Amino acid sequence: MNFCNQCGAKVDLRIPPGDLIARHVCDACGTIHYQNPRLVVGCVPEHEGRILLCRRAIEPRRGFWTVPAGFMENGETLQQAAARESKEEALADVEIGSLLTIVHVLHAQQVHVFFRAKLPIPEFAAGTESLEVELFRPGDIPWHDIAFPSTEYTLRRYLEDKAAGQEPHHFAEVDRRISR
Amino acid sequence: MNFCNQCGAKVDLRIPPGDLIARHVCDACGTIHYQNPRLVVGCVPEHEGRILLCRRAIEPRRGFWTVPAGFMENGETLQQAAARESKEEALADVEIGSLLTIVHVLHAQQVHVFFRAKLPIPEFAAGTESLEVELFRPGDIPWHDIAFPSTEYTLRRYLEDKAAGQEPHHFAEVDRRISR
Repeated sequence: MNFCNQCGAKVDLRIPPGDLIARHVCDACGTIHYQNPRLVVGCVPEHEGRILLCRRAIEPRRGFWTVPAGFMENGETLQQAAARESKEEALADVEIGSLLTIVHVLHAQQVHVFFRAKLPIPEFAAGTESLEVELFRPGDIPWHDIAFPSTEYTLRRYLEDKAAGQEPHHFAEVDRRISR
Repeated sequence: MNFCNQCGAKVDLRIPPGDLIARHVCDACGTIHYQNPRLVVGCVPEHEGRILLCRRAIEPRRGFWTVPAGFMENGETLQQAAARESKEEALADVEIGSLLTIVHVLHAQQVHVFFRAKLPIPEFAAGTESLEVELFRPGDIPWHDIAFPSTEYTLRRYLEDKAAGQEPHHFAEVDRRISR
């Protein structure tokens, strides 16, 4: 951040009075620009024991597989965001279920939230951000070509919990750069 | 948002190609400025059946009571954010427990996340953002002077769950302006 998005003046990076963290401060209009983690929201859609994955058409990690997920928008709930991303990336109408994982992706300043989901009707296709979309039996999941650590963590917990007949939620942290 | 925080040029509000939502777009440097919900994180600290509340020294809702909570910072987990806010607002060292509530505060473009917490040692005092900090027996909680709907929702679920001997998590939505 170099300029104030309110008045257009140059911003200064310093700790404001009463604060503990350096912020981009505008001396022209007084605005303090806070930067906070962003929410990425997705789900694991299942249809009769098979899991819907999307192969990414965009960077980062183009060509790798993931569950439908993306940045949460203003004015929607986490569940609505998860359903919207399934619609956009896989043209799939899903029913969002219980909370599955919350992964703190510290290096990316993101919090990833995933839900269990049902895909009642196996109708889907690649959205503009996907190269292809496919239902995978658990034994066929392409573990070596999964896009992100949070995706792999989420899929593994999903399958473990399903085998155990339980629906708990799980917290995890990822704190590293992803090699491409 | 009026200006690009990267290059300082005026931004234009429009739907970028391939998008579905209007964004602030900079035609000078090409940056698209996404705006996403912010996370507010807090906890319900308990010491021997009593709950720690803070009376707010800052707007919004100055003079009203709340549990320790505030905006999540980059580089921390939700649990670390909740503990930090207790330290800052109540000078209290808490042990963060299970996930209690997630409240979508749609009008404020915020997601509020609260955890159960223990206050092992009843040492606390007002931080700079609090007028006073106090331990309340459940029957003495000042329900008419609680700062925010998400706070009241969270406290009520906490007490109900405790009475039932369970620790589930709860989702809720708030979609209105708060009268002052």
